[in-house]
Amino acid sequence: MSLVDLSKQVALGIDIGGTNTKFGLVNHRGEILVKGSIPTDEFDTPEAFIEALYQKIQPLADEYCEGKEFEGIGVGAPNANYYTGTIEQAPNLPWKGVIQFADLMTEKFGKPCKMTNDANAAALGEMMYGAARGMKDFIMITLGTGVGSGIIAGGHLIYGHDGFAGELGHTIVKPGGRKHWSTGSEGSLEAYASATGISITARKMRAEFPDSMLNQYPEEEIDSKTVFECAKKGDPTAIEVFRYTGQKLGEALANFVMFSSPEAILLFGGVIKAGDFILKPAKLHMERNLLPIFRNKVKLVFSELDEADAAILGASALVWEK
Amino acid sequence: MSLVDLSKQVALGIDIGGTNTKFGLVNHRGEILVKGSIPTDEFDTPEAFIEALYQKIQPLADEYCEGKEFEGIGVGAPNANYYTGTIEQAPNLPWKGVIQFADLMTEKFGKPCKMTNDANAAALGEMMYGAARGMKDFIMITLGTGVGSGIIAGGHLIYGHDGFAGELGHTIVKPGGRKHWSTGSEGSLEAYASATGISITARKMRAEFPDSMLNQYPEEEIDSKTVFECAKKGDPTAIEVFRYTGQKLGEALANFVMFSSPEAILLFGGVIKAGDFILKPAKLHMERNLLPIFRNKVKLVFSELDEADAAILGASALVWEK
Repeated sequence: MSLVDLSKQVALGIDIGGTNTKFGLVNHRGEILVKGSIPTDEFDTPEAFIEALYQKIQPLADEYCEGKEFEGIGVGAPNANYYTGTIEQAPNLPWKGVIQFADLMTEKFGKPCKMTNDANAAALGEMMYGAARGMKDFIMITLGTGVGSGIIAGGHLIYGHDGFAGELGHTIVKPGGRKHWSTGSEGSLEAYASATGISITARKMRAEFPDSMLNQYPEEEIDSKTVFECAKKGDPTAIEVFRYTGQKLGEALANFVMFSSPEAILLFGGVIKAGDFILKPAKLHMERNLLPIFRNKVKLVFSELDEADAAILGASALVWEK
Repeated sequence: MSLVDLSKQVALGIDIGGTNTKFGLVNHRGEILVKGSIPTDEFDTPEAFIEALYQKIQPLADEYCEGKEFEGIGVGAPNANYYTGTIEQAPNLPWKGVIQFADLMTEKFGKPCKMTNDANAAALGEMMYGAARGMKDFIMITLGTGVGSGIIAGGHLIYGHDGFAGELGHTIVKPGGRKHWSTGSEGSLEAYASATGISITARKMRAEFPDSMLNQYPEEEIDSKTVFECAKKGDPTAIEVFRYTGQKLGEALANFVMFSSPEAILLFGGVIKAGDFILKPAKLHMERNLLPIFRNKVKLVFSELDEADAAILGASALVWEK
């Protein structure tokens, strides 16, 4: 009989973004032994990109995995497919078409490689190391430039039949509503609850209320950070921007709850810096739209993971996922 | 080593409705060996109801299970909780509060008993014996007096943390829309796509169009059957009733697809008799609201199970579920 010494296992977590790619070697407790990054957009081919990753990571792996076991690689990337290990038509990456990314990684590093999109990876990270430890049913919503999501049901990430499940940012919360700048859909959650959506709402509302403090800023500074500053100073228009955003988010969350009845919804990303300005109306409108059987049961909480490391941790969690 | 002879196993499937309760002894292939029913609403207590079930079923079980193995009991019932085996505050059953139904059944029949709501049971039935055989990711939508749903992801029914997942009929498709006659929510899918919702739509539309054939019927006959008759005869208002219903259904389905990315959506229940009058607009508006990555992938199909037997088959499938 051979016992596996979990404390000696190390996973490589990689988070591929449009501009930068971050990586880290992570142990079973979610401690990052070493981390680093390379630019994504300087490499014309995935092969060149992977070669650069290898040159940077392999010496670190040799150093930090001494006496330990380098178990495998987990990658979070836009449009990554869990089942096929491919990145498919990712609009914000330099490489087009369908890329056999996991196979290329395994060939180069000699380790198994699993992939999923960044929000799914974040959900796994929360389950493994964060606020969702011990939970079997929860939904992770990432509120950043866009709105992403990862859904855990019965202890497993929902991948769907094609690996692309969990695009909750693109569900429609207001039919015929605000047109999405990139997908063209009308009234999606992302069009309202992303940082981009908040900027649009703020620009509309400040035009309606000339007295608003928001009018003291040039157009390009009207973002969720500025709205937060004004809200903190008590500007009613800025507060209303977040209230409206929270309402749309809460209405969407109610629908999600009636789908998978999660124990908790975890919110993550830059937008949650607005805190109670968004959380309170979101909670109110979520509860208001729920069937009584679901009311006052679902925890609506902020992520516990450090934002800078969450993507690496989440990607590394793919390696431990069984 | 002992091999289990599946062909000899028999499950008791029970479907509890507000008025009648149907039951059947079912084998592994989904063949109903014998079936029957008792009234639900004539029994003041669950104990009296279960005693009556036992008196009716046990002699049949003795006869039809001879030389076979009576494996267990599956029950589909409104507000049934899979985890606790309870029926909780079911509005249309005569017994109030929280009833330890599965325990009472096991005590009486001496067999294990599993429960879930009727739509979840129907989804299991489709996976075991119906149109979803071999599928690991699909959504079942029951369009009857109400709108129910059962969601299968990764080969498993989604129960949620409390056992109540999959109330898709109560998700909001039109915020601030039609008020639901019983829940009070505004703009839920059930308010539009149930038989009740179709009647409401038909009454509104025939008032707007005095020339409609629908105006030849008394108020109480304005139901989805009458609308179907008029639509078949080419009445534009009746056709519009179904088109509008299909649109609302399709918009909701798009959101469901972006949640769990199913291989198929199965539609079931009385409303689907309207056929293409509903299916075509539903498909159109589902596709229109999907992200490109999900388009032209999801099969939208009608259930293959006989409606009269589907509930019994679905309940029996709980026994085989691992």
